Amino acid sequence: MMGLGVGLIGSGYMGKCHALAWTSVATVFSGIERPLLIALADATDELAQKQARAFGFGRGTGDWRDLLADPAIDVISIAAPNQFHADMAVAALEAGKHVWCEKPMATSLEDATRMRDAAIRTGRTAILGYNYIQNPMIRHARTLIREGRIGDVNHIRLEMDEDFMADPASPFYWKSERDSGYGALDDFAVHPLSILSVLHGRITSLVADMAKPYQERPTRDGGRRLVENHDIAQALFTTEMGVSGVLMVNRSAWGRKGRIALQIFGSNGSILFDQERMNELQIYSTDDPLDLQGYRTILAAPPHPPYRQFIPAPGHGLGFNELKVIECHELLQAISGSRDTHVINFERGLEIERVVHAAAKSADSRKWVKL
Amino acid sequence: MMGLGVGLIGSGYMGKCHALAWTSVATVFSGIERPLLIALADATDELAQKQARAFGFGRGTGDWRDLLADPAIDVISIAAPNQFHADMAVAALEAGKHVWCEKPMATSLEDATRMRDAAIRTGRTAILGYNYIQNPMIRHARTLIREGRIGDVNHIRLEMDEDFMADPASPFYWKSERDSGYGALDDFAVHPLSILSVLHGRITSLVADMAKPYQERPTRDGGRRLVENHDIAQALFTTEMGVSGVLMVNRSAWGRKGRIALQIFGSNGSILFDQERMNELQIYSTDDPLDLQGYRTILAAPPHPPYRQFIPAPGHGLGFNELKVIECHELLQAISGSRDTHVINFERGLEIERVVHAAAKSADSRKWVKL
Amino acid sequence: MMGLGVGLIGSGYMGKCHALAWTSVATVFSGIERPLLIALADATDELAQKQARAFGFGRGTGDWRDLLADPAIDVISIAAPNQFHADMAVAALEAGKHVWCEKPMATSLEDATRMRDAAIRTGRTAILGYNYIQNPMIRHARTLIREGRIGDVNHIRLEMDEDFMADPASPFYWKSERDSGYGALDDFAVHPLSILSVLHGRITSLVADMAKPYQERPTRDGGRRLVENHDIAQALFTTEMGVSGVLMVNRSAWGRKGRIALQIFGSNGSILFDQERMNELQIYSTDDPLDLQGYRTILAAPPHPPYRQFIPAPGHGLGFNELKVIECHELLQAISGSRDTHVINFERGLEIERVVHAAAKSADSRKWVKL
Amino acid sequence: MMGLGVGLIGSGYMGKCHALAWTSVATVFSGIERPLLIALADATDELAQKQARAFGFGRGTGDWRDLLADPAIDVISIAAPNQFHADMAVAALEAGKHVWCEKPMATSLEDATRMRDAAIRTGRTAILGYNYIQNPMIRHARTLIREGRIGDVNHIRLEMDEDFMADPASPFYWKSERDSGYGALDDFAVHPLSILSVLHGRITSLVADMAKPYQERPTRDGGRRLVENHDIAQALFTTEMGVSGVLMVNRSAWGRKGRIALQIFGSNGSILFDQERMNELQIYSTDDPLDLQGYRTILAAPPHPPYRQFIPAPGHGLGFNELKVIECHELLQAISGSRDTHVINFERGLEIERVVHAAAKSADSRKWVKL
Repeated sequence: MMGLGVGLIGSGYMGKCHALAWTSVATVFSGIERPLLIALADATDELAQKQARAFGFGRGTGDWRDLLADPAIDVISIAAPNQFHADMAVAALEAGKHVWCEKPMATSLEDATRMRDAAIRTGRTAILGYNYIQNPMIRHARTLIREGRIGDVNHIRLEMDEDFMADPASPFYWKSERDSGYGALDDFAVHPLSILSVLHGRITSLVADMAKPYQERPTRDGGRRLVENHDIAQALFTTEMGVSGVLMVNRSAWGRKGRIALQIFGSNGSILFDQERMNELQIYSTDDPLDLQGYRTILAAPPHPPYRQFIPAPGHGLGFNELKVIECHELLQAISGSRDTHVINFERGLEIERVVHAAAKSADSRKWVKL
Repeated sequence: MMGLGVGLIGSGYMGKCHALAWTSVATVFSGIERPLLIALADATDELAQKQARAFGFGRGTGDWRDLLADPAIDVISIAAPNQFHADMAVAALEAGKHVWCEKPMATSLEDATRMRDAAIRTGRTAILGYNYIQNPMIRHARTLIREGRIGDVNHIRLEMDEDFMADPASPFYWKSERDSGYGALDDFAVHPLSILSVLHGRITSLVADMAKPYQERPTRDGGRRLVENHDIAQALFTTEMGVSGVLMVNRSAWGRKGRIALQIFGSNGSILFDQERMNELQIYSTDDPLDLQGYRTILAAPPHPPYRQFIPAPGHGLGFNELKVIECHELLQAISGSRDTHVINFERGLEIERVVHAAAKSADSRKWVKL
Repeated sequence: MMGLGVGLIGSGYMGKCHALAWTSVATVFSGIERPLLIALADATDELAQKQARAFGFGRGTGDWRDLLADPAIDVISIAAPNQFHADMAVAALEAGKHVWCEKPMATSLEDATRMRDAAIRTGRTAILGYNYIQNPMIRHARTLIREGRIGDVNHIRLEMDEDFMADPASPFYWKSERDSGYGALDDFAVHPLSILSVLHGRITSLVADMAKPYQERPTRDGGRRLVENHDIAQALFTTEMGVSGVLMVNRSAWGRKGRIALQIFGSNGSILFDQERMNELQIYSTDDPLDLQGYRTILAAPPHPPYRQFIPAPGHGLGFNELKVIECHELLQAISGSRDTHVINFERGLEIERVVHAAAKSADSRKWVKL
Repeated sequence: MMGLGVGLIGSGYMGKCHALAWTSVATVFSGIERPLLIALADATDELAQKQARAFGFGRGTGDWRDLLADPAIDVISIAAPNQFHADMAVAALEAGKHVWCEKPMATSLEDATRMRDAAIRTGRTAILGYNYIQNPMIRHARTLIREGRIGDVNHIRLEMDEDFMADPASPFYWKSERDSGYGALDDFAVHPLSILSVLHGRITSLVADMAKPYQERPTRDGGRRLVENHDIAQALFTTEMGVSGVLMVNRSAWGRKGRIALQIFGSNGSILFDQERMNELQIYSTDDPLDLQGYRTILAAPPHPPYRQFIPAPGHGLGFNELKVIECHELLQAISGSRDTHVINFERGLEIERVVHAAAKSADSRKWVKL
């Protein structure tokens, strides 16, 4: 059997990450046919050819539509700017390709809906790049929760914070334009929401607030320009299980670099996680003897799938890029017909988008919103 | 000059803590006249006399009003159950005594207002036992913020969590009765709010939610009883400085024992604190060289007043009870006329109570509330 | 029954700590007769009288021998400079007083032996101020080890580090003189050795090394002076149980403030502790399910005696000074005849001194030494 | 220009790790010609062909000598069992290939010396797989030390601990045979020594001890067998700079999974590191303001080369396997003639082996040994 043929659109930050995943997946996971790296598309022929050579793809092209026409390509990785996701994904699906699209899904609810509809219509596999859910520690948390190890979940707190917008002296750029989206809500909220989706379930009502740490920013020509969206957002919510929670995101949080912090409380214990220490999971369990109760720090290790595929020794540490390799493996499983995959497909991705838009609406109307 | 005469009402958990403070304050702080422990009041003469002997008070009485009539007593510590605070404090003030009252201030806004009015009317010193603000690390955070070491504050997150109500199998008791208050909101929210008050300022609007992790609890006679208040509460808020924040409290949070976690973000850095590691303060500062930026864990030490009064060596650690000794010293300074004391007086305490009641109102009406 | 009469010699750092302990012990622990603070001795009458007043002692005296003659005094706290310990302790014991002496025991092995002999000869209670062993977390570690919760201990690492000698620019003072002792070995090693003594047992052989981070230091008159002892010391050792271990001490370790770090490995788990986070104990146990194994951080709480005497709520934190209160209570128990006390008496203290001197000898001879 | 031709011997744990590195290096690092994966050798033709296909190599062979004869192969990765390292490396070098050999270098000092000599004789690039030194945080530590950010180093503590030999019930296997080596000393000590080598310098004298946590182990046939080497080892040492230090290794340390802990003290600060949190480095600096001094936790980020090649966002985390990619890049630089590479070549590797053997000799003779 031959490996699947792969086309990659985009070779920047996440494009490189996809390339690494496609290159490594068969080395890491046994029993996988090695994917064939057919073609890479980027802005120009020249750039695409250079990157194709570096990343090990057979050819490069300045026109992403070339990939749709190539019968050797079975699956297309979309790591292009967000505003192109919808057109690319819909076209790829309609050309009969499977699609692996980076998040956020799209820049409007309409586009996201269009993508979801195309996935259903074509029956192709279509998933989003929510790689944080692939962390063996997040998967372990899911297993523990499902097994009832912390009892019935009754409260959830979710935080995602970085500091790339924290410097008031850094010049205004497109991330602060209204057209780029709500701000922290699109950039960040989708990530903890993807984790909430796999660990617990859906949000059914919320009230949100958004804030600007800086009202204006310097422009490169020495002037000032008003900031048009919000670097900070937070929401109180209730889930379909009747559980209360809080969601907090901040892309101007000095000191936070890649924090995605979870606190999940149950009737028999609790679970803590922070992506900045992505190889650790903390659990408190009342099953422990009373004089020994305390948070236990579990290091990622072979008992936590699929850690063992990467390293046979415990506690040696996976990295951010390796989450994409796991995601790639899940995608391959999904394409080959497995039903038990751990992915956010377009259907589920659309639900996440709906929460983001509901939060923005609530922040605007100053009212609770039902989903 | 003679030390002040002290009367103590209550000799349980916080009564013992007050007694330790009165006994230790002059040993710890130089230049203080040693207070005279005149009398202790508790539920019965017998109990009061036993405790007076153990705690080193001159006499014990079953009637707290005896203390008001004793001219040797200058100041009264109130560590009796919450529902008595108002009557005791008002009577003590009207008898010309200074008052040191445990929190929460009172069980109704009316009572709290009555206490505040009595303090103003009598001109006596009247403070509340918000001991967490006395931590040298919290004081250091205040100094750092005032000096602009993290720039302009632009976001705040406050959490207080314990697990004494976390076990669904523990029987219904008065803490779950409506009459005992809103639940986590009165029990816990006042603490982070007291810290917010000294570090930053007042809340001017909020939207809150409250939740019950368990709808009912077993009774001691084998039945079940509906829980009448809320072990979980959270609020989105804005402060008088226009800063957005989140307040979260949970007294059923398995694994949390005495957590009061602060995250304070500014334009030039951020500060983190957790009362469970009360001798540590974390700061991130963009004044550090770029390749060395990271959260710095500062251990309580002589440069952080009044740590040095307790221990001349750095990093040796203060305890929860010692915060009360610092508070006692602040009280003595306030009584002796100092204006620069670090206390929550009845005026300020009333503001905190107003936030609690506004949060309860918002949770009930499902609307934003202005203060 | 009357409380014991107390005399205190010295009112500096540790004298204050003793005074706080004597003042607080009956408030904290129930069932204890409140000690009577009879007299305090210090260098001059004037200083002693001032401190007696501040600390709540009945009188002050410039002559510590006055205390021996006072029949109202049953027990004497010795918190005077180290070189006086032996004469004071022996005289106090011979005057029929019980003795609570600060560590280090004495400045020579001969003096320490003389003290031990006097204790045996007089039959009085004589203990040393090794307060770190009083930490409820250290006591809990002892319980866990005795109960076999980590199986058979097979390896031990002990570290004690501070940074008060770390600055090469700080002037030469008496701590760097040969007559003040070996350096880090006397200052620090005795502390982890006291903990080893209560948690495990005695050292039977060792090889040690000592080092000078700085060969000379500035003098106050602008010159330079050679450093005469060693701020750093380490030893490999074997215990009476045949267990191997490492002891490391450093009083010039920039960044360390009050670190006493223990790593105790057994056949079924391990225990970690660091005095800088004195309210935490970490345990790893293979009794946990395989997918949940990890270090568990236990916060000091009521199940860990005698924490509950100080605070009924878990995780609220004891401080360094409170360890002395526990020690005081143990002393009172020992005086009243209890055999099950948790103290380092002069006999055991002498064993610790022997290890220190053996280590110095080994460092000098560059050979393994047997004890 | 064509990429180098690669041959890989061994496709187990470290073989897979090498394969990932060869596959990823040109994707991660720009400006590198993509290596050509020519052939993979393993125990049998069948296994080798299967793995070659999975890992993306052109062909597989059961005879590693085939690789030496292939002119398309420029460099050979040796990830075969330790006892074959010397023969393979020498033969490869003599066949004109560059060599990348996994550690430990060899099972005897003679073999290691033979390897070193072959490298010098042939002038080929020959490096060892000491991947921990490639961590951007270790490289950052080196930069900080070289720039004098912690002043003059004056004390070093090194620990490496895992728990794969910690279970006394796990059966005797070859790791406990004398022929497999000294035990923890070969398995682990070489790693912290490789880090010491790049951060500081060479050890010139030491005294060591070794210990057996378990004297015997069960055999698979129900019997017992004496353990022939030592799972625990420690040494006091002095370096060429006159700095004192301690080296501790334990492969039976329950709870430790991949700990390599460094404590490096200097006259102006100190640096801490633990491989179990491999994306963090801690530094204490007296350059900080006095009231802000404390250990700062730096997260791996773009300012710490070559982190940026993997991820443009800070604090997202590299994994253990990615250290091998960095090592591969250093190897390629070395092959292309760069003198400023960060590798342990065979010359330096031999020095590390000498320390291991000296420690074993010291443990045996119970004496200090000079190097």
